[in-house]
Amino acid sequence: MCHTLVVNETVDHRLRSAWTPEAGHAAALPPHALRWLADRIGPLTPSTPAAPSSAIAVPPSELAPEAKAALVEVVGADGVLDEGSERLGRAGGLSYLDLLRRRFPDGLAVPDAVVVPADPDAVQRVVDVCVAHDVGVVPFGGGTSVVGGVAALRGDKKAVIALDLHRLDRLVSVDPTSRLAVFQAGVRGPAAHRLLAPHGLTLGHVPQSFERATLGGFAATRSAGQASSGYGRFEDMVQGVRLATPSGPWRLGVAPASAAGPDLRALAVGSEGTLGVITEVTVRVRPVPERERYEGFVLRGWHDAMHVVRTLAQNGLAADVTRVSDVDETEVTLALKGGVVTGALRRYLSARRVHEPCLLILGWYGRAPQRARALKVLRAAGAVSLGRAPGEAWRHGRFSGPRQRDALLDAGVCVETLETATQWSRLAELYDAVRSALRGALDRPVIMCHISHAYETGASLYFTVLAARDPDDPFGQWERAKRAASEAISGRGTISHHHAVGVDHAPYLRAEIGDVGMSVLAAAKNATDPSGVLNPGKLGL
Amino acid sequence: MCHTLVVNETVDHRLRSAWTPEAGHAAALPPHALRWLADRIGPLTPSTPAAPSSAIAVPPSELAPEAKAALVEVVGADGVLDEGSERLGRAGGLSYLDLLRRRFPDGLAVPDAVVVPADPDAVQRVVDVCVAHDVGVVPFGGGTSVVGGVAALRGDKKAVIALDLHRLDRLVSVDPTSRLAVFQAGVRGPAAHRLLAPHGLTLGHVPQSFERATLGGFAATRSAGQASSGYGRFEDMVQGVRLATPSGPWRLGVAPASAAGPDLRALAVGSEGTLGVITEVTVRVRPVPERERYEGFVLRGWHDAMHVVRTLAQNGLAADVTRVSDVDETEVTLALKGGVVTGALRRYLSARRVHEPCLLILGWYGRAPQRARALKVLRAAGAVSLGRAPGEAWRHGRFSGPRQRDALLDAGVCVETLETATQWSRLAELYDAVRSALRGALDRPVIMCHISHAYETGASLYFTVLAARDPDDPFGQWERAKRAASEAISGRGTISHHHAVGVDHAPYLRAEIGDVGMSVLAAAKNATDPSGVLNPGKLGL
Repeated sequence: MCHTLVVNETVDHRLRSAWTPEAGHAAALPPHALRWLADRIGPLTPSTPAAPSSAIAVPPSELAPEAKAALVEVVGADGVLDEGSERLGRAGGLSYLDLLRRRFPDGLAVPDAVVVPADPDAVQRVVDVCVAHDVGVVPFGGGTSVVGGVAALRGDKKAVIALDLHRLDRLVSVDPTSRLAVFQAGVRGPAAHRLLAPHGLTLGHVPQSFERATLGGFAATRSAGQASSGYGRFEDMVQGVRLATPSGPWRLGVAPASAAGPDLRALAVGSEGTLGVITEVTVRVRPVPERERYEGFVLRGWHDAMHVVRTLAQNGLAADVTRVSDVDETEVTLALKGGVVTGALRRYLSARRVHEPCLLILGWYGRAPQRARALKVLRAAGAVSLGRAPGEAWRHGRFSGPRQRDALLDAGVCVETLETATQWSRLAELYDAVRSALRGALDRPVIMCHISHAYETGASLYFTVLAARDPDDPFGQWERAKRAASEAISGRGTISHHHAVGVDHAPYLRAEIGDVGMSVLAAAKNATDPSGVLNPGKLGL
Repeated sequence: MCHTLVVNETVDHRLRSAWTPEAGHAAALPPHALRWLADRIGPLTPSTPAAPSSAIAVPPSELAPEAKAALVEVVGADGVLDEGSERLGRAGGLSYLDLLRRRFPDGLAVPDAVVVPADPDAVQRVVDVCVAHDVGVVPFGGGTSVVGGVAALRGDKKAVIALDLHRLDRLVSVDPTSRLAVFQAGVRGPAAHRLLAPHGLTLGHVPQSFERATLGGFAATRSAGQASSGYGRFEDMVQGVRLATPSGPWRLGVAPASAAGPDLRALAVGSEGTLGVITEVTVRVRPVPERERYEGFVLRGWHDAMHVVRTLAQNGLAADVTRVSDVDETEVTLALKGGVVTGALRRYLSARRVHEPCLLILGWYGRAPQRARALKVLRAAGAVSLGRAPGEAWRHGRFSGPRQRDALLDAGVCVETLETATQWSRLAELYDAVRSALRGALDRPVIMCHISHAYETGASLYFTVLAARDPDDPFGQWERAKRAASEAISGRGTISHHHAVGVDHAPYLRAEIGDVGMSVLAAAKNATDPSGVLNPGKLGL
């Protein structure tokens, strides 16, 4: 979700802690934001609140006693958790559908046990046991998937476990000369940064899921962080991976580059737990930048905004964080800020004849020479500098979006994000098509969009959609909107730029990679996971 | 082969034209170079010369008449060539073994016909015919493989065709906004540059095979060009591919980046014709740089040279072309130049206490700000500037290496190149191990090495080896040396940084990608090419 709703963060463990014991703080919505929303998308019907886990009837575990005993033998009794609260805590991720299901928990897919191995070898043994007992395995890192990537589907298996990787929390080794670090897969974003800090190094991978998501998850889903313009996508950082597969251990990556056949790292990365469980990743690291500087500008309309970001990206001048909001997202940002400052800003922009402001946030990690040249591009485009305050405000709220969704759901809002990418020449067409599709599928939606990942040849589009939730058919409402948006994307761009496929995007994968591509994926899975225990139902496999 | 032997290029079509009708000029060796070689690696036994094709007994074509008729139906009678000279012209590539076989042609693998389709659809139909008639298909672009990648092996097939792609020579479309161009696969390096020039664009991909190799071949083998530090490897440029496979047409790549499952482009790229025939590539292009500037420096010993190149690469200051020779390669360069200039240079360097000179060539395509900062790094390292002459000399001879090998073979020299890459912290160890292995396997070899591709996390090593050819067992001599070097590489680096796998590196692929990786490759092949007609015996498939 976009940062623009970041207002008045408060601490409220109740909303999520029942479901996700390690969740961060949820955020309430201030009254003026709710009034604004009701005015734009209302009327709103406040929702059934999320049920506390104690109130949910968790179905009994289907894990056979022999399978459980074999798992206990590998990870110890305290590594196999089958209490209802633990299983509920891994019943899906953080998609809108996941949040909805916690309010309407009928048919919620709950794993039959949570298994918590302590190291990569134990993961391999757990996988072996699951193969021997024909038990499904859902690898579970931070549980932040927004596309159903950790849904506890069991496919044709009688039982399925959540393979929770949080004990794989070690920095295995650091090679400062080669700027490489080997991490176990369960290390979360903040821990990775903390573990690297004594070496003067940083990962530079800062997606919105940073606080909870794991390095294994970043690799499994081809994550892209907010600083991707400077640091690349996570897949660009991965030099090696270690996986546990039903066909045995698998290690890849001995060199910075190779022509030794197809790059199979690219098959493991993005496989979303269907080909193997990633247990270690070797990643490129960099010296901690001497300073970070965030700043805001206003550009003149969406067309100009796209042009400016393209110019920056194609001349090597994109800031590490480069992010531009469309007119609607910019308007919502200003509206939700409210008050005197916003009024003054509106007058200031109006005096400069900025009639369709598009907020641009740039975050520089060092790189002063590039910044100087980028500012010239911005001046030439008539950009209006807003100084550091908007940049700092963005930085402050950069991880907060997901935490506000429960408050929005409480208020009766349907809130969803979706994203895609395409080449520059098709970006405007894709933008129009998605907005048009969403407007057709939803009543009075607010549709906001930003570009947060710019490349030489194209860019991503990230949409945040708000609508009054249909109190009678909230799931059907989402499904219709999702289908409309996905069909608009299909053929014009990728079905996902960084959210991955999971369950939600699986119906659209074939159109993107072809019948041959689907059969290649299925064949690869059959090679690594012949009995199909790994993450059933994801990637359409 | 390294540029250092570029001296006195002369025009001599005889040496290669019989085998490769479109080959460039071969180069003779000047007397002082031959004397130097005989002194260092001799005595030399001048060789059986390459036989003219008319003197070779080409085995009769095994292509069944029905198969030939079906092929003629697709590509016309003038698209199916089964004369001996045409078939000989596609009997392998340009490896040392290939050159040897042209002197000792017993057992030469010759395709049963050369098929020349005119467009991607025709390629698909040719593949379909070959599946229907169980005929092997060796995709043939520029024929520059140095690892047996286009050897006309037939596997379990009775007949095999060379699928020559040179008629697929079109620039299909250009999208300057997105900096993308779609090329047919048979376009050669110079043609690509010529076709892009009217648009003010360039590919920036300039490997040593540039003059003859094709864009389809660059993609199929994960080629890396001499300007890879600035423009990236070819796989970094490829945004999309179109393939003809026995399971049907396959298109990949709709966006600059995606998280829609594993990146299957990375499976098609590097598949060396085993999964499909690449018929089109969509590549990133860039504006033609305003100027190119090549210059030379001398660094103080190999250890310092590696350190300087690493410093440049890790600070974003590597020139587009960044290439440093070790002490031995530098010495050979100077020795072969001979004469007054070299003597003066030696005295100049000696006066500056450069006792172990390592020649550094930098080629800048624009990028003046980076150059200024790079020069500071060089000054701090005590580098001695040689000005532009060595840079221009390198540029002049940048594609000439392969053309000199026939002259070396005539003189009785065994000449081979091999290359690898690893992370920076292991580079010195890998360098030592390969040299030691080659010294153990060959008598009095000259072993030269350079780094020509530097990354943040590591670099390539490119070795050129010269030895007196064993007149009694030239093939065995090569095999022993190749095995020794490959075993030294295996486990320390990649078996190939940019030459690909073909036949020569196939025995070492399993050690690099594991049993699981090999089974994944085999499964992918089984999905796209169930009857195994495509490029039998390559990649160990």
